[in-house]
Parts: sequence; C-alpha cells; structure tokens
Amino acid sequence: MSKIFLKNAYVMKSSDSETKKYNIAVNDGKIIKITGENDFFDENGYEIFDLNNKLITPGFINSHSHAVMTYFRGNSDDTTIKEWLFDNMLPREEFLNDEMAYYGAMTGFMEMISSGITTSVDMYMFTDSISKAAADTGIRAYVSRGLSYDTQEGWERRINENIETYKKYNNYDGRIKIGFGPHAPYTVPMEKFRELSEIINDYKESINQIHIYEGLWEKESYKLSDLEETGFLSHNVIAAHCVHADDEDIKILKRNNVTVAHNPSSNMKLGSGTAPIKKFIDSGINVTLGTDGAGSNNSLNILKEAHMASMLQKNTIGPEKIKKEEILKMCWENGAHALNEKIGEIREGYMADLVVFDLNDEEWLPNNTVKFKSHLVYNIPKKSLYATMINGKWVYFDRKFPGINKEDIYEKFGKYCDKIEADFYNYSNNLGK
Amino acid sequence: MSKIFLKNAYVMKSSDSETKKYNIAVNDGKIIKITGENDFFDENGYEIFDLNNKLITPGFINSHSHAVMTYFRGNSDDTTIKEWLFDNMLPREEFLNDEMAYYGAMTGFMEMISSGITTSVDMYMFTDSISKAAADTGIRAYVSRGLSYDTQEGWERRINENIETYKKYNNYDGRIKIGFGPHAPYTVPMEKFRELSEIINDYKESINQIHIYEGLWEKESYKLSDLEETGFLSHNVIAAHCVHADDEDIKILKRNNVTVAHNPSSNMKLGSGTAPIKKFIDSGINVTLGTDGAGSNNSLNILKEAHMASMLQKNTIGPEKIKKEEILKMCWENGAHALNEKIGEIREGYMADLVVFDLNDEEWLPNNTVKFKSHLVYNIPKKSLYATMINGKWVYFDRKFPGINKEDIYEKFGKYCDKIEADFYNYSNNLGK
Repeated sequence: MSKIFLKNAYVMKSSDSETKKYNIAVNDGKIIKITGENDFFDENGYEIFDLNNKLITPGFINSHSHAVMTYFRGNSDDTTIKEWLFDNMLPREEFLNDEMAYYGAMTGFMEMISSGITTSVDMYMFTDSISKAAADTGIRAYVSRGLSYDTQEGWERRINENIETYKKYNNYDGRIKIGFGPHAPYTVPMEKFRELSEIINDYKESINQIHIYEGLWEKESYKLSDLEETGFLSHNVIAAHCVHADDEDIKILKRNNVTVAHNPSSNMKLGSGTAPIKKFIDSGINVTLGTDGAGSNNSLNILKEAHMASMLQKNTIGPEKIKKEEILKMCWENGAHALNEKIGEIREGYMADLVVFDLNDEEWLPNNTVKFKSHLVYNIPKKSLYATMINGKWVYFDRKFPGINKEDIYEKFGKYCDKIEADFYNYSNNLGK
Repeated sequence: MSKIFLKNAYVMKSSDSETKKYNIAVNDGKIIKITGENDFFDENGYEIFDLNNKLITPGFINSHSHAVMTYFRGNSDDTTIKEWLFDNMLPREEFLNDEMAYYGAMTGFMEMISSGITTSVDMYMFTDSISKAAADTGIRAYVSRGLSYDTQEGWERRINENIETYKKYNNYDGRIKIGFGPHAPYTVPMEKFRELSEIINDYKESINQIHIYEGLWEKESYKLSDLEETGFLSHNVIAAHCVHADDEDIKILKRNNVTVAHNPSSNMKLGSGTAPIKKFIDSGINVTLGTDGAGSNNSLNILKEAHMASMLQKNTIGPEKIKKEEILKMCWENGAHALNEKIGEIREGYMADLVVFDLNDEEWLPNNTVKFKSHLVYNIPKKSLYATMINGKWVYFDRKFPGINKEDIYEKFGKYCDKIEADFYNYSNNLGK
C-alpha cells in the first residue's frame, strides 16, 4: 500500500480544534504522523500531494442509510407516509434482485463519497450485494440485514442470510463490518428480539441497527421498556429516528448506551416530526447523523443533514441552544464512538479517512479559518469538494472516481431503474383486476 | 448583441410543464424562438452551443436579499437574535463604505449566479455600489435603499439617496430597477409611511420592499391595519418574512396584492418561527422565496430555500400538503409576477434568463426527465450547475465568470472583510472604557 504525504493544507482535526496548517503522513491506511507547517519530515518514499489553499477535514460518518433505495429517489415525494410506504416503496422493492441491488448500492455509495461521506451504516436486504459495492467503491461500511418477522421460516432465512454475509464480508479490507438489523419493534415480536439477543451473544463486537419511534403512531404499538427487557438494546445498538422518545424512553436509551441516529431531512419530508436532539445530548445520549435512504431524503449528503439538524433545533428551542461544534461532533466523534472505531478525527494512529475541500470557491467566503466550521455546517459546501480518502486510499480525487467506470455503473443503474418502473407500472395496472 | 442558439438540451419551461428536448434561439436579450428537437431552424448568424445531456431551466428569482452582508457570514451563528443583531450585525455595518459595499455585493451576486439565481431583490444602504455590482456581474436586480427614521434629517437624506440611485441606475441595461425600502413598521413611524406613499406616487412602476412580522415580538409593536391605512402596501410591495401573520393580516396582504417573500433558512437559523406559507398560497397571496442575507442564512442558494420551504410545510401540516410544483412556482412564476417582468419561464418573447445543469452528475440520478423537478427541489443540485445566462448573456459558463477577474474581486473582498473584523475588534475592546 502506497505511502502518501499531504502537504500545505489547512487541517480541521476535530469538532473542537482550531483550523491550522499541517502536513499529514499516511501509511498502510493510517495517519502515522502529523507535522506542523514548517517541521522537517523525511518525504523519501512518499507520494506527495501539495494541497495548498485546500482544507482537510475528517471524513463524515453517515449513521443511517439504505443505499440501494437510490433507485427510488423522486418516486413518491408529496404523498402521505402510507402512500409513500405501501403504494410506492414496498411494491418497488419486490422487483429488486442481487445484481440490481449491487448497482443501486454502488450509485448510492458513490454519491455519498462525492459529498464527503467515508463511512456508512446501512440496513437493507441484499447484504452480499451491498457489501460487494462497499468493497468496490472503497467506502467504510457497517451493513445489517433488515430483519422482520412474518413466518418462522422467513425470520430464520433472513437471519441466516445475515450470518452468511457476516462469514463472507465481516472485516473485509479492515473496513466492512456486518451486524444485525431487526427492522423495528412493530415488525418483530418481542420474543424474537429475545432469540436474536441470544444469537448476537456470539457476535459481541457487531454494531446492530433498528428503527425506533419514527412515527407518532408507533407509541401505540409497543413500549420501549419491553424491548429493553429482551436484552437487544444492550448490544451496540444504533437506533434510527427516535423522533417521539419521551423522558422515560430517554432514560432507557441512555442506560443501554444506545446511539440515536438523527435523520432530520427524512423526518421532515415524511412529516414525522422533530426529534428532541438537544434533549438527547443533554441527557448524555450519543447522537449521530444519518441521511436515511434517497427514497425519503432525497439527498445522500451528510452536511445537508448537519445544516438541517441545527436549523430544526434553533427554530424549536432557540438559536443559541445548539452550536456548530455539537453538530459536527455528531457526524465525526459521535459517529466514531457509535462504531467503536478510530475515525472521525485527524489524529496519529487513526484511520486515514479524510475529505479535501478546494478553498478557491464561493462556498468558502469569507475565506477565514475561524469561519470554516460555520461554512461546513451552514453553507453546506458541495461543489468545492475536491477529494475523499478512505483507509489511506483516494476513492474520489479531482471530482473523479479512480478505478471505477462511472459511465458503466450509471448506465446499468439507469437501465435497472427503468426496469423497476416498468415492472411497477405493470403491477399497478394489474391491481384489482 | 450576439445571437445564440442552444441545441439538444432538455428544457423545463416552467413549474407546470413536462421536461422535453427543445432548441432555444436568443437574440437581443430575449428568447425569440423555441423549436422542437427535430424542427428546422436557420442557424445562420447564431453562435451555437450544443447542450447535449444538459438541462435548461428558467433562472431562479431571489425575492429578498442583502448581498453586501456576505461579509458577515459566520459572524454570529449560534447566538440569540438580539446578540446577532445588536452586538454583531449593526456594529459591523458601521465600518462599511461605498467601495467595501461594492466588493461585498459583487461577491454576493457572484455566489448567487453560481447557484442559478438570475434576479435578486436587494435592500440595503449603499444602493449606488450595489447597483454598480449588479451592472458589473450581469445579474438582474431590484434595489431599494433601506429606509429607517431616526431624525427628520436622516430620513430625508436616505430618501434622497434612494432617489439619486433611481436617477442614476433605474432601467440600466434593462435589468436594474430601483424602488423604495422602508425597513419595517417598527423602525419607521406610520406618518412617515404616509409621506413615503405620496413620494412613491411619482414612481408608479417601482417595486418596493419591507420587512413584516419576522419576529413574534413585532405583533406588540404595530398593527398591519395601521400600515394599510398609510397607503404604502398598495404600491407593488414585497414583504419579507410575514412569519407571524394571522388571519386578519392575511386578508390585508391579499387585498393589497402584497407579495410575501419567504426566507425559511434565515427564519429557522434566527429561531423566528415557521411562516404559514401554504395558508398564504391557499388564500391567493403571491408567495416567493428569498435567501435573506448571508449574515443569517448563511447560503445564497435559492434551491436550498426551495427544499427548506417544502420541508418546513411538510413537517408542520403534512407531507402531502405541498407539492414540488408549488415550490418551483415560488422562485419562478411567482417571483416574476411580483416584479411584473417577463422572466421565470422559458417562453418566446420572455427575457433569456436561463440556468444550465450538467446531467452527467450524481445529483441527477435517476436520470429520468419525470424526476427532474424532484431532483431540483429535494436534491438541491449545485455542483452540477454548469452555466447561467441573464439577459441573453452568459454571466457564468463552465463554472467560470467570463469578463470578471474573480481572483481580484475575492482578494479585495477578503482584505475588506479582515478590515471590518479588525475595526470591530477595536470597537468591542473599547466598549465601556
């Protein structure tokens, strides 16, 4: 693996550090040395990148996504949530297969990488295809099979798929991890959560995912205390949404060290409500940010979520009540904490997951280091994103994907998207016949 | 003026039209002919632009801005609105002069153009500088002097400045219009609104601007019915914000044909509240979108506001209650209606104000014409913005500003920004001494 030396760039090491000029040496996927602007470093054997007038930040962590759903972007924008889910998303998912899922995940991950996401936590069917797409794009990924219970046979089949993907992909290239993803307490009975907790005992380090209280109606469907009793919540859980968590729920989330993945655009677009994020933070809960899928967001850009998370809190509890540093922490240090991984900060010994912005762009004016965190959160820089490094490799550079035939991927994605729409059209026309 | 023929592009003519391939002929600043994909057109004498795999939309209309405030982006993000205004914005404005205002407005307008804004409605001091910046960047601009009353001398001086700028710049290049901008009913006494209405009688076509009910506290300060009585509201008024307009206020706005400029990001960032936009629309009020200034937004991208406007309504009244077409209409047809100008649509005889997006980008996937309106509103395309035409001229092309020395502008902007911060630092240190 090549040794890389990044020179002359402004570096924002973390959510609470000042932005200064540093040089960064990368070897074997890790940040091995950070030197001051004028410190001596023996560059012998390193590939040198002069990043003058550029800014390096930690890569962004997307704590909740469904990359394959990139196919469904724009399919059901302005409808009720029931129409969105039952009449548009679920029927279309029936027409997917492994190969289609691969191209959907490739396209979703490439979009994430092009907006600075270096790690994505994904829950869906087709976990082999998604893991392969993560392997091929170079993204760091935490993949779980979405598990729901219809029949015992179906339940077991899904768990077996989850375990098969684990055997095949867990720890691939040091950057793909497989966990379990019981969809929600309203699609999985409590006794099945108990069974699953027993299984997860054999996968102690896995990061597991679930949807909790996305819609208000879920409060009528189950109690979080019943879920706690099954033992599932204590297994490194990332709970997406938690829009309608009340004070009792907050205590349960906190004492089980559950991470809450906040998906503000998706919540607003579906009219789900405003999650009490600041209350979670003040209660000591680890809060992170997610894009959710393109079917409900519709954008896979975590900085858009950073902006939206801040706006929602400011408009609800007051503009002074949430700070940009807290927001950046959600997609950096808190994301890393949820995954128990050395990412989300630029530090020696940490993984080399980095984003490079070109400061010679309207998006960075006033071009003053003290304002760079403000620009990141409140100006949503996107066109100035120049490069993305994951595990010490450039997976996006000069706005291109080295080693990926983008035209071919997008052509296949387009072809399969058309196929889904044709199949869906036929299905819709045959309804009730 | 050169004759231009735009070929082979997908064209979205308006908020309610289907996207199809057309060719567009431009002459003397206007769209003179739109032909079908395979129709014959005599290209002789035209400069030809092949825009294959690109999308042309109408230029976006920004109905409320303060371009000079681009200097203040990131100065006071996470503070109360009083700290923001009295401790950060107003003191800094004291350090501006004409030349600084020119470079602030240049930078603000260039940022707007790079995100597809072709018309901006601006209220501020330094209207000569702002008009000159509009002239030099090529943007279509409606400029008003912000008028407040402290002393009779100050009031008259500001009105005279407004009138001087009118004489100098009104109708410049057919794209700069000067109107009057009484700041708000809490900074201008009602009898002064009466005087101003008399003056405006001599400027019957001017578009005039005001801030109405941005903060809830304003409801205690004045009654909209008193403002109506002064006659001002009947003079082609664009009222920014109207966050706290109640049912009686809505009737007043409607019967005076007042346009409401909605600035959702600014309202959220300052914690001002959620304007009842859908209610306005259903009441027959003309609703448009504005970025407000970079001091409170912090981004001058109208598509971000389109997205935000939709999200806020969906999260407040339901996801099915507002449609993407209504949102696009706000920054196209409704913006044009407020200004009484042939813009906001791609039609023969209309001004050639156009935006070109490169469809070969992640931002446009799935790359399907029926989804293009969804992508515009819900995916906020920005890095794929390829070119902007105003009044038949390319003011931004291939992501560059032809005829503008961008480096020089941004260098002067940076220098003056540093000067403001140094002056502000000295001022802050001397407070209370």
